[in-house]
Parts: sequence; C-alpha cells; structure tokens
Amino acid sequence: MDEIREVIEGKAAALHTGDVKAVLAYYAAEVVEFNLAPPLRQRFDAQDAAPMEGWLSTFAEPPSRRVTQLEITASEDVAFATSLDCMSATPKGSTEGFNLWFRVTIGLRKIDGRWLVTHEHESVPFEMDGSFRASIGLEP
Amino acid sequence: MDEIREVIEGKAAALHTGDVKAVLAYYAAEVVEFNLAPPLRQRFDAQDAAPMEGWLSTFAEPPSRRVTQLEITASEDVAFATSLDCMSATPKGSTEGFNLWFRVTIGLRKIDGRWLVTHEHESVPFEMDGSFRASIGLEP
Repeated sequence: MDEIREVIEGKAAALHTGDVKAVLAYYAAEVVEFNLAPPLRQRFDAQDAAPMEGWLSTFAEPPSRRVTQLEITASEDVAFATSLDCMSATPKGSTEGFNLWFRVTIGLRKIDGRWLVTHEHESVPFEMDGSFRASIGLEP
Repeated sequence: MDEIREVIEGKAAALHTGDVKAVLAYYAAEVVEFNLAPPLRQRFDAQDAAPMEGWLSTFAEPPSRRVTQLEITASEDVAFATSLDCMSATPKGSTEGFNLWFRVTIGLRKIDGRWLVTHEHESVPFEMDGSFRASIGLEP
C-alpha cells in the first residue's frame, strides 16, 4: 500500500516541479488513458515526453495537484486506487488561476518488482439538466 | 478472466431486462461510485434498489448497454477492467432515443469466491475550447 501511495503522491509532486521524465517514470510502457479532454480513450506512451511537455507549456508554471480521499485496493501484483484530486494552475497569459476538482481512478501492475500505472481515468461528471455542461465547479 | 467478463457483461444484460436485483447482485456491499451525473463521488449501497429503480423509471424501457474494447487486468483477488460502453435509451415521454458512448473503469475484488464490483467510474471527457461542454457526441 505504501509503495502504491508513493507512486500516486510522487507522480503529483513530480508534476509540480515540472519534471516530466520523473512523472513518466511512474507509468508502464503502455497505458490506457481516459483523460479529462477528448478523445474517449487513448494509448499513452510513457517513452514520449513531448505531449506532456506541450501540455505543461500552456501554464505559467507547473500545476499543483492535491490528492484527497485516496483509497487503494491491492493484491500481490494488481491494484487500483481512487481519489478526488484538485489541480491548481494558471494558464499562460492569464492573470487568474483556476482550481479544478476531478475524480481519478488509477490501475497499477507490479512489473519487475515496481508498481507502475497501466491505466488512468480522470473525469468530472456532467449536468443532467439538458445543458450537458461539464460539472467543473464541484468540490468534495 | 472469464468470470470477470461475465460480471461485466451479465450486469449489462440484467440492466436491459430491467431486473435491478440481478444488476445489484454483481456489486459488493459498499461501492465507491464516480457516476456520469454529479456529485463527484458517492457511496453506492447495493442493498438499496430504490435509486436504480427510480433511474430506470425515467426511461420508456430499460436501456441497453453495449460493452466494447473490454480489457481486464486481474490477479488472484483484485482486478480492474476498462471499456467503452454505449448506452441506448429513450426517455419516457420522448419520441426519440439517444446513444451515449462513455468510458468505464470497474474495480473488483474476489469476496467469498465471487468477483464483485467495489468501484465504478463512468465518464465522458469535456471540451477544452472554453465551452466546458461534456463531449456527449463522441464515438470510439
């Protein structure tokens, strides 16, 4: 459990330093990614730092990511973890930052003695009032 | 793997028959639920059929749910599964049905010899164009 917690919190801490290689080191070679942004599903290649570097470059400084309500379910070599995370960031060129709370499910496998992320699902719900707006203003 | 596949596909099939008890029998007593609708997170009580029956009663007939691109990662007693599902339904009083594609991550534990769902995360992404619209028109 402690090792898995370190993966999840270490990954968040590495993001905040802007160290993309350190973030990607927590991932397996192939990851099924359900991201906040479209498409529905993508394969994430942890060898390729360019997409994450591109994303980071849209912010004034690397976003912070707070992990809360973390619950881990683990066996010997397969685990999943759920949390509610808050990303705080300021888009480049903007004077105002934002906070976004979202749900996170992480799937992990122990590969060669190390827990690595093989699946990541991040989302907000959406309003069922006919507006189909993403619920970006929710807090836990 | 086959048992887990049966949980996921059996649950979808039971929904289409409108048999809420049969759907709920696939869940553990306590489930962490990240749903399509707010709130961010809820505890789901598989003993309580009323919420799902209420939801089903908003449709002309029980929705169908197609499970595609199912990938299962399992150990002895912990597993997670990812898929892209399509729900087809017609709201009561509406002449037109809809199809909604969404991402699903299921967390499972083997409890007393049976695989049960302990976590469910369902979502669509949202548009990063400033509109914050849920991406309800995507297809795999």
